[in-house]
Amino acid sequence: MATQHAVDEAGIRERIGELVEAVSAMNLDGVKLAYAPDIVSFDIEPPLQHVGAAAKWHNWTGFFTVYQRPVGYEVRDLTITVGDDVAFAHSLNRVTGTLKNGSSADYWVRWTACFRKIDGTWLIAHDHVSVPLDVASGRALLDLTP
Amino acid sequence: MATQHAVDEAGIRERIGELVEAVSAMNLDGVKLAYAPDIVSFDIEPPLQHVGAAAKWHNWTGFFTVYQRPVGYEVRDLTITVGDDVAFAHSLNRVTGTLKNGSSADYWVRWTACFRKIDGTWLIAHDHVSVPLDVASGRALLDLTP
Repeated sequence: MATQHAVDEAGIRERIGELVEAVSAMNLDGVKLAYAPDIVSFDIEPPLQHVGAAAKWHNWTGFFTVYQRPVGYEVRDLTITVGDDVAFAHSLNRVTGTLKNGSSADYWVRWTACFRKIDGTWLIAHDHVSVPLDVASGRALLDLTP
Repeated sequence: MATQHAVDEAGIRERIGELVEAVSAMNLDGVKLAYAPDIVSFDIEPPLQHVGAAAKWHNWTGFFTVYQRPVGYEVRDLTITVGDDVAFAHSLNRVTGTLKNGSSADYWVRWTACFRKIDGTWLIAHDHVSVPLDVASGRALLDLTP
């Protein structure tokens, strides 16, 4: 199984690389390839959960709408744990860019992506994107760095 | 494998039940049983990541320090996906209680827990706890409900 796990890990790493490339290029069709139809996403913006691939695509569309092209999307400390047909990955992702309103953005999010192997293809069946909370002030912390 | 998966899912559900019970009772020794030594936690409070079981225990200790006993910890919409030795779970968890300073708390968090089967025992090797962000105001949204 070690060899198969190595193959699977490489496949997931490639899948994530394609997703990152599609995000940077604001290529929604490319982004769509990463997700299982029944994904449940705990995304950075409300509501608490976004159910189904169309909801996830909608969130990316919103992101692409407010940023100028291209946007920076860096994945750091990517760690992948692979089973036979279930896997999970986590990383710290940096978003950099200029919004269409002219303001600039540079912040890090935590990203967890949980995969299922469906018909031989690794797809994201659940993901979770967030920044930490400062309990005292109630503010979301967008200025943290790894 | 279907039968083994059912056994594993039941084991993970039981493990989560024990964790929830330990949290409600503020039983740190019970909480400790849930985590792999090398857990990487994207927890609700900073920094971006908390590496190692001791860091996770420290976070729970902080939580137990500010709340009166017992605290309410409800797990809703728990979904578990099981592979041979890797699994993931996600749920919406409600925290209710009274702080030692007298103020009351009632909020929902999103929880993702990623498991590895280590020496026959399912342990949380990665978890992610958060609330969504209101981009316009920069506030963490502690008043959302499922």
